[in-house]
Amino acid sequence: MTSNLITNELFDKHQQTLNQALSAIKAREFWTVYPEVPSKKIYGETANADGLSAFNARLNNSFVLSQPTNGEFIGNETSPYGFDLNIRHPKADLDTLIPAMQAALPAWRDAGIQTRTGICLEILERLNKISFEMGYAVMHTSGQSFVMGFQAGGPHAQDRGLEALAYAYELMTQTAPSVTWVKPQGRHQPLSVEKTFTVVPRGISATIACATFPTWNSYPGLFASLVTGNPVVIKPHPGAILPLAITVQIAQQVLQQNGFAPHLVSLFADDAQHPITKDLALHQSVKLIDYTGSSEFGNWLEDNARQAQVYTEKAGINSIVIDSAEQLKPVVNNLAFSLSLYSGQMCTTPQNIYIPKDGIGTSEGPLSFDQVASALATAIEGLLSDDKRAVDILGNIQSAATLKRVSNASALGEVILQDKAYQNSEFDNATMRSPLVLKVNASDTTSYMQEMFGPIVFLIATDSTKHSIELAKQSALEHGALTWGIYSNNQEVLNQMAQASLDAAVALSCNLTGGLFVNQAAAFSDFHATGANNAANASLTNAQFVSGRFAVVQNRWHSKSQ
Amino acid sequence: MTSNLITNELFDKHQQTLNQALSAIKAREFWTVYPEVPSKKIYGETANADGLSAFNARLNNSFVLSQPTNGEFIGNETSPYGFDLNIRHPKADLDTLIPAMQAALPAWRDAGIQTRTGICLEILERLNKISFEMGYAVMHTSGQSFVMGFQAGGPHAQDRGLEALAYAYELMTQTAPSVTWVKPQGRHQPLSVEKTFTVVPRGISATIACATFPTWNSYPGLFASLVTGNPVVIKPHPGAILPLAITVQIAQQVLQQNGFAPHLVSLFADDAQHPITKDLALHQSVKLIDYTGSSEFGNWLEDNARQAQVYTEKAGINSIVIDSAEQLKPVVNNLAFSLSLYSGQMCTTPQNIYIPKDGIGTSEGPLSFDQVASALATAIEGLLSDDKRAVDILGNIQSAATLKRVSNASALGEVILQDKAYQNSEFDNATMRSPLVLKVNASDTTSYMQEMFGPIVFLIATDSTKHSIELAKQSALEHGALTWGIYSNNQEVLNQMAQASLDAAVALSCNLTGGLFVNQAAAFSDFHATGANNAANASLTNAQFVSGRFAVVQNRWHSKSQ
Repeated sequence: MTSNLITNELFDKHQQTLNQALSAIKAREFWTVYPEVPSKKIYGETANADGLSAFNARLNNSFVLSQPTNGEFIGNETSPYGFDLNIRHPKADLDTLIPAMQAALPAWRDAGIQTRTGICLEILERLNKISFEMGYAVMHTSGQSFVMGFQAGGPHAQDRGLEALAYAYELMTQTAPSVTWVKPQGRHQPLSVEKTFTVVPRGISATIACATFPTWNSYPGLFASLVTGNPVVIKPHPGAILPLAITVQIAQQVLQQNGFAPHLVSLFADDAQHPITKDLALHQSVKLIDYTGSSEFGNWLEDNARQAQVYTEKAGINSIVIDSAEQLKPVVNNLAFSLSLYSGQMCTTPQNIYIPKDGIGTSEGPLSFDQVASALATAIEGLLSDDKRAVDILGNIQSAATLKRVSNASALGEVILQDKAYQNSEFDNATMRSPLVLKVNASDTTSYMQEMFGPIVFLIATDSTKHSIELAKQSALEHGALTWGIYSNNQEVLNQMAQASLDAAVALSCNLTGGLFVNQAAAFSDFHATGANNAANASLTNAQFVSGRFAVVQNRWHSKSQ
Repeated sequence: MTSNLITNELFDKHQQTLNQALSAIKAREFWTVYPEVPSKKIYGETANADGLSAFNARLNNSFVLSQPTNGEFIGNETSPYGFDLNIRHPKADLDTLIPAMQAALPAWRDAGIQTRTGICLEILERLNKISFEMGYAVMHTSGQSFVMGFQAGGPHAQDRGLEALAYAYELMTQTAPSVTWVKPQGRHQPLSVEKTFTVVPRGISATIACATFPTWNSYPGLFASLVTGNPVVIKPHPGAILPLAITVQIAQQVLQQNGFAPHLVSLFADDAQHPITKDLALHQSVKLIDYTGSSEFGNWLEDNARQAQVYTEKAGINSIVIDSAEQLKPVVNNLAFSLSLYSGQMCTTPQNIYIPKDGIGTSEGPLSFDQVASALATAIEGLLSDDKRAVDILGNIQSAATLKRVSNASALGEVILQDKAYQNSEFDNATMRSPLVLKVNASDTTSYMQEMFGPIVFLIATDSTKHSIELAKQSALEHGALTWGIYSNNQEVLNQMAQASLDAAVALSCNLTGGLFVNQAAAFSDFHATGANNAANASLTNAQFVSGRFAVVQNRWHSKSQ
């Protein structure tokens, strides 16, 4: 069996990476195997030029995949930097695609854990090699800056895929593949039974991706499902097909080269005019769904795709509580970056900043609410004072809906800092926005107790820090939250916030200054979402995220000696 | 802190048991810590007499629990052996019970993994000590024989509880409780961040138990939820409250003795006239539900208790395929016992036996379908030829509905063996039934392609073994199945059945004869249900069963040295 030989070689080739990943998910120490720096020294002298030219070759062209298609093409992606990609992606019908994927399932299942693991690790390595091309693909679909598109769309997404694969491998191999079970029978001969335990997949797995982080948010589900034996169909956001089409193409190449049906990983693309996600989500053969996007559609999936196990990351309201600080400047500098990065379009970006209406204490003396607000506004303006740097930090607004939301939000409070567009010297039609900062009273819940995706920030005047913590907790319990931050010199206050974070199941960052930001989550160490509040029903990544993707079927018979 | 001292002692006391359990769930070798033999040598000279008198003292009495009650009592349990238990159980209102349990949650959560684990292990040990009393309690609610009530209701249930606890402990401790995360920053000083990771529960956990195996089926959910920090409310079947009332009482004693609110484990009993399960299941604070019972109510729970993670074990149709045998006699003897045990009321009891209409091959020559059918009938009659032994094997029919189902089933096929009642010398009104064995054609799907809970067996005449396997697979895919058996001398046929068992996600037993039976599942080795067909959405026990019962909340801050 040539294919088995090759695939066992792949497992051996990547075993050290796997072992390190298995240690990392437990110890939670810093670890990565895919370098996050887009450096020539690491990725090769011509990596950037090669990546850009590979990206450019995709434009105005038909994308070729090895999967059943109906001969038609689809897709009208537009770069947020202001031009049409004009890429025609193959169109698929569920009636032919799903049965073909089902037919490929038994061979993939029967290939066993090591073979599937080796192939998945090879796919990740190949994805890593084209991280520059992926950086441009993510940049021109999500609107991120190139560096962010490279990092979040490339190595960081690969990290998250490897992390999910490691969790799945850990659980699949938790049960011995076979055992001789010997039960004593008093004076009689013991009862001896041979047993085998086989990992079987759940069925077709659907990954429904978002437009802002098309690969980062979908690689965990893709690799967790694929390594556990499930064929995976990827439904990209119509605005960000390319990064996932490239991903599917590489997965298909590796599968095919190792003797498996390439369409074990398939693309199911649509355009905004003719959405097809619901057809996929409700298909009776789809047993697993991974979704990132709006709460509205996520809740619809949870309520309606009842034939499937549904893993969702939806919207939430992230909160910062400012109680006190040694110095205010490092605080507002840190926050300014978190609020500005990718024009506030990260699901981990803070939206609500709670500050006592009577101000805060610092080692330099008390500061009024307005002084804190003003310092934050100044920090944002300073951070973005240089157009070139502003453009690199802000990236672009991905969707017209977000742009419109920012434009309409000024009326929701007292404007502390108006949102602003910047000049992008390279792209005329780029659409970034700096954060719109609004002041509201704690009682104005209708303005700030709703998710306002994009660069919209509320500074909320509360009665006290206790009040701030209560509101943050209430907000997380009702609307969900992925991240919380607190600034305080008072250990008792930090403890209260920590206790509230346990009650509301939100990750908490304390007194972040310098080079660590509340919206950052490092694979193998930081859990992205807890899965235990309304922002998400799953966490990237833990045992819950992978354990429902397979079952163990046992077979037993009397030992021969009996 | 006295309570912490005591509870850390409990963890130390039981740590060896825990460590062995942690090894056992991986290796799947034979292991148990709770002896299954109701022997004086193990449980003490007076254990049986003490257990019986403890049980008798429960009768005609009010049951005392340490939990909020409304002052009223409820319960009208009747022994299937023909007398009223006349036990009055405390009644509870959700409006007071649930808030009281919620209020007790933070202290239980904050006690930490080791303290909770020590307490749960102590509860299990105390339950083991009263296994004789539990045996009588299970006997006189489920209708099982005493020995079965002792084993399945006592040590085997405790095994399953410990197994679930071990899985939960394994996953809770998979993540390091804290780490110093150090990320290199090129020529700059590394970024050093302290992180903690805290296990938090999901909320109130509800265990909805059945009447046939009140403890065995509910201990896994009870201990998996409790050890992960969730308060547990147990909703017993109105016909089998006592075994769970005793369980709750012991749990409350251990909790209270260690400084925790006893009502962290509470009883929520009702009677058949005023069912309250739906009120509990739909309560917004109930975030976890474990259920064993009918498919109808299990599906209702899955569809309606959307605020909760729902783990169900429902009904299925278990199949046996007879293809060939060395000798027929050991085959039918083995099947006769599996079909008769507890009057066929195990969820793992075979219902459908597929046999080629042209008969089977044996080393003693070919046998016709009717010869196989007749041999099985003879084996059942022989097994139950002695009244005393028949009573011990059959136990009693738990519910009037099952009795009625058996009485009405004769019309569904050609009667090969009529069901029969036996004399119980000790109890006049006992209601056991030997299996009703019916012959049907494979085309009579309306008769056998439905679950007929109780001692009802269909012998199905098929075109071939290939046809038999197809029908078993179709049945499992449509209606679910917990167990399959096959008898064959042909490795190719065994492989085909094994492949089908992977497709349908059913546990398969091959050529069982002698002292191993298809309806038996040993904790730490055999998985009970796969969770991947319609018979159950969870498996006892694997990572999927425990991983959704808690989340991990992280907290991070810059290392002090920075």
